[in-house]
Amino acid sequence: MVNDQKIKVAVDAIVFGYKNSALYVLLVQQKYGPMKGKWVLPGGLVQTDESLSEAVRRELKEEAGIQVNYLEQLYTFGDDIHRDPRGRVISVAYFALADPAKFSLQADTDAEDAQWFDMDSMPAAGYDHAVIITAAHDRLRNKLSYQPIGFDLLDKEFLFSELENLYCTILGSEIDRRNFRKKIMSYGIVDETNKTASVGSGRPGKLFRFNTRKYQSLQKVGFHFEINLRK
Amino acid sequence: MVNDQKIKVAVDAIVFGYKNSALYVLLVQQKYGPMKGKWVLPGGLVQTDESLSEAVRRELKEEAGIQVNYLEQLYTFGDDIHRDPRGRVISVAYFALADPAKFSLQADTDAEDAQWFDMDSMPAAGYDHAVIITAAHDRLRNKLSYQPIGFDLLDKEFLFSELENLYCTILGSEIDRRNFRKKIMSYGIVDETNKTASVGSGRPGKLFRFNTRKYQSLQKVGFHFEINLRK
Repeated sequence: MVNDQKIKVAVDAIVFGYKNSALYVLLVQQKYGPMKGKWVLPGGLVQTDESLSEAVRRELKEEAGIQVNYLEQLYTFGDDIHRDPRGRVISVAYFALADPAKFSLQADTDAEDAQWFDMDSMPAAGYDHAVIITAAHDRLRNKLSYQPIGFDLLDKEFLFSELENLYCTILGSEIDRRNFRKKIMSYGIVDETNKTASVGSGRPGKLFRFNTRKYQSLQKVGFHFEINLRK
Repeated sequence: MVNDQKIKVAVDAIVFGYKNSALYVLLVQQKYGPMKGKWVLPGGLVQTDESLSEAVRRELKEEAGIQVNYLEQLYTFGDDIHRDPRGRVISVAYFALADPAKFSLQADTDAEDAQWFDMDSMPAAGYDHAVIITAAHDRLRNKLSYQPIGFDLLDKEFLFSELENLYCTILGSEIDRRNFRKKIMSYGIVDETNKTASVGSGRPGKLFRFNTRKYQSLQKVGFHFEINLRK
Protein backbone atom coordinates (compact mmCIF):
# COMPACT_ATOMS: atom_id res chain seq x y z
CA MET A 1 0.00 0.00 0.00
CA VAL A 2 1.38 3.39 -1.03
CA ASN A 3 1.97 5.43 2.10
CA ASP A 4 2.48 8.93 0.79
CA GLN A 5 -1.18 9.72 0.29
CA LYS A 6 -2.07 13.01 1.98
CA ILE A 7 -5.83 13.06 1.91
CA LYS A 8 -8.12 13.55 4.87
CA VAL A 9 -11.62 12.11 5.10
CA ALA A 10 -14.44 14.23 6.45
CA VAL A 11 -18.19 13.74 6.74
CA ASP A 12 -20.77 16.50 6.41
CA ALA A 13 -24.50 16.34 7.10
CA ILE A 14 -27.29 18.17 5.35
CA VAL A 15 -30.14 18.01 7.84
CA PHE A 16 -33.51 19.18 6.59
CA GLY A 17 -36.32 20.17 8.88
CA TYR A 18 -39.84 21.43 8.18
CA LYS A 19 -41.90 23.86 10.25
CA ASN A 20 -44.56 26.52 9.61
CA SER A 21 -44.80 25.52 5.94
CA ALA A 22 -41.12 26.21 5.29
CA LEU A 23 -38.11 23.98 4.63
CA TYR A 24 -35.10 24.50 6.87
CA VAL A 25 -31.50 23.36 6.81
CA LEU A 26 -29.22 23.08 9.84
CA LEU A 27 -26.00 25.10 9.77
CA VAL A 28 -23.27 25.69 12.34
CA GLN A 29 -21.03 28.70 12.72
CA GLN A 30 -17.34 27.83 12.65
CA LYS A 31 -15.43 28.66 15.81
CA TYR A 32 -11.93 28.08 14.42
CA GLY A 33 -9.94 27.76 11.22
CA PRO A 34 -10.04 29.43 7.82
CA MET A 35 -13.85 29.60 7.85
CA LYS A 36 -14.09 31.14 11.35
CA GLY A 37 -17.42 32.99 11.70
CA LYS A 38 -18.86 31.37 8.53
CA TRP A 39 -21.94 29.19 8.50
CA VAL A 40 -21.24 25.67 7.26
CA LEU A 41 -22.75 22.20 7.37
CA PRO A 42 -22.17 20.29 10.59
CA GLY A 43 -19.37 17.79 10.06
CA GLY A 44 -15.71 17.09 10.55
CA LEU A 45 -12.90 14.60 10.19
CA VAL A 46 -13.65 10.91 10.63
CA GLN A 47 -11.85 9.14 13.45
CA THR A 48 -9.73 6.18 12.38
CA ASP A 49 -11.74 3.71 14.45
CA GLU A 50 -15.29 4.85 13.72
CA SER A 51 -17.51 4.08 10.75
CA LEU A 52 -18.56 6.88 8.41
CA SER A 53 -22.14 6.89 9.69
CA GLU A 54 -20.97 6.90 13.32
CA ALA A 55 -18.83 9.92 12.48
CA VAL A 56 -21.84 11.83 11.13
CA ARG A 57 -23.99 11.04 14.15
CA ARG A 58 -21.17 12.04 16.49
CA GLU A 59 -20.58 15.36 14.71
CA LEU A 60 -24.31 16.16 14.73
CA LYS A 61 -24.47 15.52 18.45
CA GLU A 62 -21.26 17.45 19.23
CA GLU A 63 -21.78 20.46 17.02
CA ALA A 64 -25.55 20.88 17.22
CA GLY A 65 -26.88 18.57 19.96
CA ILE A 66 -29.20 16.85 17.53
CA GLN A 67 -30.26 13.32 16.60
CA VAL A 68 -31.81 12.63 13.21
CA ASN A 69 -34.85 10.58 12.15
CA TYR A 70 -33.43 9.56 8.84
CA LEU A 71 -29.87 9.33 7.51
CA GLU A 72 -28.50 8.19 4.19
CA GLN A 73 -25.33 8.77 2.24
CA LEU A 74 -25.70 11.44 -0.42
CA TYR A 75 -22.45 11.72 -2.38
CA THR A 76 -18.69 11.98 -1.86
CA PHE A 77 -17.26 15.33 -2.85
CA GLY A 78 -13.66 14.92 -3.92
CA ASP A 79 -13.31 16.06 -7.51
CA ASP A 80 -12.35 19.61 -6.57
CA ILE A 81 -8.95 18.99 -5.01
CA HIS A 82 -8.85 22.54 -3.59
CA ARG A 83 -12.20 22.45 -1.83
CA ASP A 84 -10.56 22.91 1.57
CA PRO A 85 -7.87 25.62 1.96
CA ARG A 86 -6.05 23.52 4.60
CA GLY A 87 -5.17 20.67 2.26
CA ARG A 88 -6.82 17.84 0.38
CA VAL A 89 -10.00 16.75 2.13
CA ILE A 90 -12.75 14.65 0.64
CA SER A 91 -16.18 14.88 2.18
CA VAL A 92 -18.65 12.03 2.38
CA ALA A 93 -21.91 13.96 2.55
CA TYR A 94 -25.00 12.58 4.28
CA PHE A 95 -28.62 13.51 3.77
CA ALA A 96 -30.70 13.63 6.96
CA LEU A 97 -34.14 14.60 8.21
CA ALA A 98 -35.00 15.80 11.69
CA ASP A 99 -37.86 17.44 13.53
CA PRO A 100 -36.83 20.99 14.56
CA ALA A 101 -39.47 20.99 17.30
CA LYS A 102 -37.89 17.98 19.01
CA PHE A 103 -34.51 19.51 19.86
CA SER A 104 -33.18 22.75 21.22
CA LEU A 105 -29.96 23.19 19.27
CA GLN A 106 -26.79 23.19 21.33
CA ALA A 107 -23.52 24.22 19.68
CA ASP A 108 -20.26 22.84 21.07
CA THR A 109 -16.71 21.72 20.09
CA ASP A 110 -15.88 23.36 16.71
CA ALA A 111 -19.22 25.17 16.48
CA GLU A 112 -19.83 28.66 17.89
CA ASP A 113 -23.54 28.50 17.12
CA ALA A 114 -26.08 26.17 15.49
CA GLN A 115 -29.26 27.31 13.76
CA TRP A 116 -32.02 26.27 11.42
CA PHE A 117 -32.11 28.43 8.31
CA ASP A 118 -35.07 28.81 6.00
CA MET A 119 -33.91 27.50 2.60
CA ASP A 120 -35.21 30.74 1.08
CA SER A 121 -33.00 33.01 3.18
CA MET A 122 -29.72 31.27 3.90
CA PRO A 123 -26.34 32.88 4.55
CA ALA A 124 -23.58 32.18 1.99
CA ALA A 125 -22.16 28.87 3.22
CA GLY A 126 -18.40 28.30 3.66
CA TYR A 127 -16.28 25.86 1.63
CA ASP A 128 -18.25 24.22 -1.23
CA HIS A 129 -21.20 23.65 1.08
CA ALA A 130 -23.66 25.58 -1.10
CA VAL A 131 -23.03 22.97 -3.82
CA ILE A 132 -23.58 20.13 -1.35
CA ILE A 133 -26.82 21.72 -0.10
CA THR A 134 -28.10 22.03 -3.68
CA ALA A 135 -27.34 18.35 -4.34
CA ALA A 136 -29.19 17.38 -1.16
CA HIS A 137 -32.16 19.58 -2.03
CA ASP A 138 -32.38 17.83 -5.44
CA ARG A 139 -32.25 14.44 -3.73
CA LEU A 140 -35.04 15.47 -1.34
CA ARG A 141 -37.25 16.69 -4.19
CA ASN A 142 -36.69 13.51 -6.18
CA LYS A 143 -37.21 11.24 -3.21
CA LEU A 144 -40.67 12.69 -2.58
CA SER A 145 -41.90 10.90 -5.70
CA TYR A 146 -40.54 7.43 -4.95
CA GLN A 147 -40.19 7.14 -1.16
CA PRO A 148 -42.68 8.17 1.55
CA ILE A 149 -40.10 10.45 3.08
CA GLY A 150 -42.36 13.42 3.73
CA PHE A 151 -43.71 11.73 6.85
CA ASP A 152 -40.30 11.95 8.53
CA LEU A 153 -40.61 15.73 8.33
CA LEU A 154 -44.08 15.97 9.89
CA ASP A 155 -45.38 15.31 13.37
CA LYS A 156 -46.58 11.75 14.01
CA GLU A 157 -50.17 12.97 13.49
CA PHE A 158 -50.87 15.53 10.84
CA LEU A 159 -53.65 17.15 8.84
CA PHE A 160 -53.78 16.07 5.23
CA SER A 161 -53.38 19.72 4.24
CA GLU A 162 -50.06 19.76 6.09
CA LEU A 163 -48.79 16.84 4.02
CA GLU A 164 -49.94 18.61 0.86
CA ASN A 165 -48.28 21.85 1.93
CA LEU A 166 -45.04 20.00 2.63
CA TYR A 167 -45.01 18.61 -0.92
CA CYS A 168 -45.79 22.05 -2.36
CA THR A 169 -43.07 23.72 -0.28
CA ILE A 170 -40.33 21.24 -1.17
CA LEU A 171 -41.28 21.09 -4.84
CA GLY A 172 -41.69 24.86 -5.03
CA SER A 173 -44.93 24.48 -6.96
CA GLU A 174 -48.60 23.64 -6.54
CA ILE A 175 -49.69 20.00 -6.76
CA ASP A 176 -52.93 18.42 -7.93
CA ARG A 177 -54.33 18.05 -4.40
CA ARG A 178 -57.29 15.87 -5.30
CA ASN A 179 -55.30 13.24 -7.13
CA PHE A 180 -52.51 13.46 -4.57
CA ARG A 181 -54.87 12.58 -1.76
CA LYS A 182 -56.55 9.82 -3.75
CA LYS A 183 -53.18 8.27 -4.60
CA ILE A 184 -51.74 8.45 -1.09
CA MET A 185 -54.88 6.97 0.46
CA SER A 186 -55.05 4.20 -2.17
CA TYR A 187 -51.74 2.78 -0.90
CA GLY A 188 -53.21 2.08 2.53
CA ILE A 189 -50.07 3.36 4.27
CA VAL A 190 -51.76 6.36 5.88
CA ASP A 191 -54.39 5.79 8.56
CA GLU A 192 -57.15 8.16 9.52
CA THR A 193 -57.28 8.70 13.31
CA ASN A 194 -60.44 9.65 15.17
CA LYS A 195 -58.91 12.96 16.24
CA THR A 196 -59.30 16.37 14.65
CA ALA A 197 -57.19 19.51 14.75
CA SER A 198 -57.15 22.90 13.08
CA VAL A 199 -54.42 25.24 11.90
CA GLY A 200 -54.88 28.92 12.83
CA SER A 201 -58.48 29.91 12.28
CA GLY A 202 -59.02 27.07 9.79
CA ARG A 203 -61.83 24.57 9.97
CA PRO A 204 -60.97 21.47 12.10
CA GLY A 205 -59.78 18.53 10.01
CA LYS A 206 -59.08 14.84 10.62
CA LEU A 207 -55.64 13.90 11.83
CA PHE A 208 -53.76 11.21 9.90
CA ARG A 209 -50.83 9.00 10.78
CA PHE A 210 -48.25 7.19 8.65
CA ASN A 211 -48.39 3.41 9.10
CA THR A 212 -44.72 2.41 9.09
CA ARG A 213 -45.42 -1.26 9.77
CA LYS A 214 -47.86 -1.49 6.86
CA TYR A 215 -45.39 0.24 4.54
CA GLN A 216 -42.59 -2.12 5.54
CA SER A 217 -44.73 -5.21 5.02
CA LEU A 218 -45.82 -3.91 1.60
CA GLN A 219 -42.19 -3.27 0.67
CA LYS A 220 -41.37 -6.90 1.41
CA VAL A 221 -43.85 -8.02 -1.24
CA GLY A 222 -42.40 -5.66 -3.86
CA PHE A 223 -44.59 -2.58 -3.36
CA HIS A 224 -43.13 0.65 -4.73
CA PHE A 225 -44.31 4.00 -3.48
CA GLU A 226 -44.78 6.32 -6.41
CA ILE A 227 -46.36 9.74 -6.64
CA ASN A 228 -46.35 11.32 -10.05
CA LEU A 229 -45.95 14.98 -9.33
CA ARG A 230 -46.06 16.31 -12.83
CA LYS A 231 -49.40 18.02 -13.29
CA MET B 1 -7.40 20.14 11.60
CA VAL B 2 -6.75 16.94 13.56
CA ASN B 3 -3.66 15.31 12.11
CA ASP B 4 -3.72 11.85 13.57
CA GLN B 5 -6.30 10.43 11.18
CA LYS B 6 -5.03 7.18 9.67
CA ILE B 7 -7.48 6.52 6.87
CA LYS B 8 -6.60 5.88 3.23
CA VAL B 9 -8.87 6.75 0.33
CA ALA B 10 -9.28 4.30 -2.54
CA VAL B 11 -11.52 4.19 -5.60
CA ASP B 12 -12.96 1.02 -7.12
CA ALA B 13 -14.80 0.61 -10.39
CA ILE B 14 -17.62 -1.77 -11.23
CA VAL B 15 -17.57 -1.89 -15.01
CA PHE B 16 -20.46 -3.69 -16.65
CA GLY B 17 -20.35 -4.96 -20.21
CA TYR B 18 -22.91 -6.81 -22.30
CA LYS B 19 -22.25 -9.40 -25.00
CA ASN B 20 -23.99 -12.49 -26.39
CA SER B 21 -27.08 -11.82 -24.28
CA ALA B 22 -25.12 -11.95 -21.02
CA LEU B 23 -24.09 -9.32 -18.49
CA TYR B 24 -20.38 -9.17 -17.63
CA VAL B 25 -18.34 -7.45 -14.95
CA LEU B 26 -14.66 -6.57 -15.20
CA LEU B 27 -12.33 -8.04 -12.57
CA VAL B 28 -8.57 -8.00 -12.15
CA GLN B 29 -6.37 -10.56 -10.46
CA GLN B 30 -4.23 -9.09 -7.69
CA LYS B 31 -0.49 -9.36 -8.24
CA TYR B 32 0.60 -8.31 -4.73
CA GLY B 33 -0.62 -7.93 -1.17
CA PRO B 34 -2.99 -9.84 1.08
CA MET B 35 -5.35 -10.63 -1.79
CA LYS B 36 -2.62 -11.92 -4.12
CA GLY B 37 -4.15 -14.25 -6.72
CA LYS B 38 -7.71 -13.15 -5.88
CA TRP B 39 -10.05 -11.50 -8.37
CA VAL B 40 -11.11 -8.02 -7.30
CA LEU B 41 -12.55 -4.84 -8.79
CA PRO B 42 -10.06 -2.63 -10.60
CA GLY B 43 -9.09 0.26 -8.33
CA GLY B 44 -6.52 1.58 -5.92
CA LEU B 45 -5.42 4.46 -3.75
CA VAL B 46 -6.16 8.00 -4.90
CA GLN B 47 -3.18 10.26 -5.50
CA THR B 48 -3.13 13.43 -3.44
CA ASP B 49 -3.23 15.70 -6.48
CA GLU B 50 -5.85 13.94 -8.59
CA SER B 51 -9.63 14.11 -8.42
CA LEU B 52 -11.61 11.01 -7.48
CA SER B 53 -12.91 10.50 -11.01
CA GLU B 54 -9.41 10.97 -12.48
CA ALA B 55 -8.21 8.28 -10.10
CA VAL B 56 -10.83 5.80 -11.34
CA ARG B 57 -10.04 6.45 -14.99
CA ARG B 58 -6.31 6.10 -14.30
CA GLU B 59 -6.75 2.80 -12.45
CA LEU B 60 -8.97 1.40 -15.22
CA LYS B 61 -6.36 2.29 -17.79
CA GLU B 62 -3.43 0.97 -15.73
CA GLU B 63 -4.94 -2.25 -14.46
CA ALA B 64 -7.10 -3.26 -17.42
CA GLY B 65 -6.24 -1.00 -20.38
CA ILE B 66 -9.83 0.13 -20.69
CA GLN B 67 -11.78 3.36 -21.15
CA VAL B 68 -15.43 3.54 -20.17
CA ASN B 69 -18.50 4.97 -21.94
CA TYR B 70 -20.28 5.95 -18.80
CA LEU B 71 -19.07 6.65 -15.27
CA GLU B 72 -20.90 7.77 -12.15
CA GLN B 73 -20.26 7.58 -8.45
CA LEU B 74 -22.07 4.69 -6.78
CA TYR B 75 -21.45 4.79 -3.03
CA THR B 76 -18.64 5.19 -0.53
CA PHE B 77 -17.92 2.05 1.47
CA GLY B 78 -16.53 2.97 4.85
CA ASP B 79 -18.83 1.64 7.53
CA ASP B 80 -16.93 -1.62 7.93
CA ILE B 81 -13.69 -0.35 9.44
CA HIS B 82 -11.98 -3.72 8.88
CA ARG B 83 -12.80 -4.04 5.17
CA ASP B 84 -9.09 -3.96 4.24
CA PRO B 85 -6.67 -6.17 6.25
CA ARG B 86 -3.86 -3.62 5.73
CA GLY B 87 -5.55 -0.84 7.71
CA ARG B 88 -8.46 1.54 7.47
CA VAL B 89 -9.33 2.21 3.84
CA ILE B 90 -12.55 3.75 2.57
CA SER B 91 -13.51 3.05 -1.01
CA VAL B 92 -15.38 5.47 -3.24
CA ALA B 93 -17.01 3.05 -5.66
CA TYR B 94 -17.88 4.03 -9.24
CA PHE B 95 -20.41 2.49 -11.57
CA ALA B 96 -19.30 2.26 -15.21
CA LEU B 97 -20.39 0.84 -18.54
CA ALA B 98 -18.09 -0.23 -21.37
CA ASP B 99 -18.23 -2.17 -24.59
CA PRO B 100 -16.24 -5.42 -24.21
CA ALA B 101 -15.83 -5.64 -27.99
CA LYS B 102 -14.04 -2.29 -28.12
CA PHE B 103 -11.00 -3.18 -26.01
CA SER B 104 -8.62 -6.05 -25.63
CA LEU B 105 -7.96 -6.10 -21.90
CA GLN B 106 -4.40 -5.43 -20.83
CA ALA B 107 -3.41 -6.03 -17.21
CA ASP B 108 -0.54 -4.02 -15.75
CA THR B 109 0.81 -2.42 -12.52
CA ASP B 110 -0.97 -4.14 -9.57
CA ALA B 111 -2.96 -6.50 -11.80
CA GLU B 112 -1.71 -9.90 -12.91
CA ASP B 113 -4.66 -10.44 -15.24
CA ALA B 114 -7.87 -8.68 -16.28
CA GLN B 115 -11.01 -10.46 -17.48
CA TRP B 116 -14.71 -10.05 -18.12
CA PHE B 117 -16.77 -12.43 -15.98
CA ASP B 118 -20.34 -13.47 -16.69
CA MET B 119 -22.39 -12.23 -13.72
CA ASP B 120 -23.83 -15.74 -13.47
CA SER B 121 -20.47 -17.45 -12.96
CA MET B 122 -18.12 -15.17 -11.10
CA PRO B 123 -15.24 -16.14 -8.84
CA ALA B 124 -15.54 -15.19 -5.15
CA ALA B 125 -14.24 -11.62 -5.13
CA GLY B 126 -11.63 -10.41 -2.64
CA TYR B 127 -12.20 -7.80 0.11
CA ASP B 128 -15.88 -6.72 0.36
CA HIS B 129 -16.10 -6.48 -3.41
CA ALA B 130 -18.99 -8.94 -3.71
CA VAL B 131 -21.07 -6.48 -1.67
CA ILE B 132 -20.01 -3.60 -3.92
CA ILE B 133 -20.88 -5.59 -7.05
CA THR B 134 -24.34 -6.37 -5.66
CA ALA B 135 -24.95 -2.68 -4.95
CA ALA B 136 -23.88 -1.79 -8.49
CA HIS B 137 -26.06 -4.49 -10.00
CA ASP B 138 -29.06 -3.08 -8.09
CA ARG B 139 -28.23 0.40 -9.37
CA LEU B 140 -28.03 -0.90 -12.94
CA ARG B 141 -31.38 -2.65 -12.69
CA ASN B 142 -33.06 0.42 -11.20
CA LYS B 143 -31.51 2.79 -13.70
CA LEU B 144 -32.98 0.84 -16.61
CA SER B 145 -36.40 2.17 -15.66
CA TYR B 146 -35.55 5.85 -15.38
CA GLN B 147 -32.52 6.48 -17.60
CA PRO B 148 -31.87 5.27 -21.18
CA ILE B 149 -28.70 3.55 -20.03
CA GLY B 150 -29.15 0.31 -21.94
CA PHE B 151 -27.93 1.97 -25.12
CA ASP B 152 -24.46 2.44 -23.61
CA LEU B 153 -24.20 -1.34 -23.42
CA LEU B 154 -25.17 -2.02 -27.04
CA ASP B 155 -23.48 -1.34 -30.34
CA LYS B 156 -24.33 2.01 -31.95
CA GLU B 157 -26.77 0.19 -34.23
CA PHE B 158 -28.85 -2.64 -32.84
CA LEU B 159 -31.85 -4.83 -33.51
CA PHE B 160 -34.85 -4.06 -31.36
CA SER B 161 -34.74 -7.65 -30.14
CA GLU B 162 -31.22 -7.02 -28.82
CA LEU B 163 -32.46 -4.09 -26.73
CA GLU B 164 -35.31 -6.23 -25.42
CA ASN B 165 -32.91 -9.08 -24.60
CA LEU B 166 -30.62 -6.69 -22.75
CA TYR B 167 -33.52 -5.58 -20.54
CA CYS B 168 -34.55 -9.20 -19.91
CA THR B 169 -30.97 -10.23 -19.07
CA ILE B 170 -30.31 -7.42 -16.63
CA LEU B 171 -33.71 -7.69 -14.96
CA GLY B 172 -33.51 -11.47 -14.86
CA SER B 173 -37.10 -11.78 -16.08
CA GLU B 174 -39.24 -11.52 -19.20
CA ILE B 175 -40.67 -8.13 -20.16
CA ASP B 176 -43.87 -7.18 -21.98
CA ARG B 177 -42.15 -6.80 -25.36
CA ARG B 178 -45.07 -5.19 -27.21
CA ASN B 179 -45.60 -2.42 -24.67
CA PHE B 180 -41.86 -2.00 -24.22
CA ARG B 181 -41.38 -1.30 -27.92
CA LYS B 182 -44.39 1.01 -28.10
CA LYS B 183 -43.16 3.01 -25.11
CA ILE B 184 -39.54 3.31 -26.29
CA MET B 185 -40.61 4.38 -29.79
CA SER B 186 -43.16 6.88 -28.43
CA TYR B 187 -40.32 8.91 -26.85
CA GLY B 188 -38.76 9.61 -30.24
CA ILE B 189 -35.25 8.99 -28.90
CA VAL B 190 -34.62 5.87 -30.99
CA ASP B 191 -34.34 6.21 -34.77
CA GLU B 192 -35.00 3.49 -37.30
CA THR B 193 -32.13 3.23 -39.81
CA ASN B 194 -32.58 1.93 -43.35
CA LYS B 195 -30.26 -1.01 -42.62
CA THR B 196 -31.17 -4.54 -41.64
CA ALA B 197 -29.26 -7.28 -39.87
CA SER B 198 -29.94 -10.73 -38.49
CA VAL B 199 -28.74 -12.70 -35.49
CA GLY B 200 -27.75 -16.31 -36.15
CA SER B 201 -30.27 -17.91 -38.47
CA GLY B 202 -32.97 -15.39 -37.47
CA ARG B 203 -35.00 -13.36 -39.92
CA PRO B 204 -33.34 -10.03 -40.85
CA GLY B 205 -34.66 -7.09 -38.84
CA LYS B 206 -34.32 -3.31 -38.97
CA LEU B 207 -31.37 -1.73 -37.22
CA PHE B 208 -32.07 1.07 -34.76
CA ARG B 209 -29.91 3.80 -33.30
CA PHE B 210 -30.17 5.83 -30.08
CA ASN B 211 -30.53 9.55 -30.76
CA THR B 212 -28.37 11.15 -28.06
CA ARG B 213 -28.90 14.69 -29.33
CA LYS B 214 -32.67 14.31 -29.29
CA TYR B 215 -32.59 12.84 -25.79
CA GLN B 216 -30.43 15.69 -24.50
CA SER B 217 -32.67 18.34 -26.02
CA LEU B 218 -35.75 16.65 -24.52
CA GLN B 219 -34.07 16.53 -21.13
CA LYS B 220 -33.57 20.29 -21.27
CA VAL B 221 -37.33 20.79 -21.50
CA GLY B 222 -37.99 18.53 -18.53
CA PHE B 223 -38.50 15.16 -20.25
CA HIS B 224 -38.11 12.13 -18.01
CA PHE B 225 -37.37 8.72 -19.47
CA GLU B 226 -39.52 6.16 -17.73
CA ILE B 227 -40.14 2.53 -18.51
CA ASN B 228 -42.45 0.73 -16.16
CA LEU B 229 -41.06 -2.78 -16.10
CA ARG B 230 -43.55 -4.37 -13.80
CA LYS B 231 -45.77 -6.63 -15.87
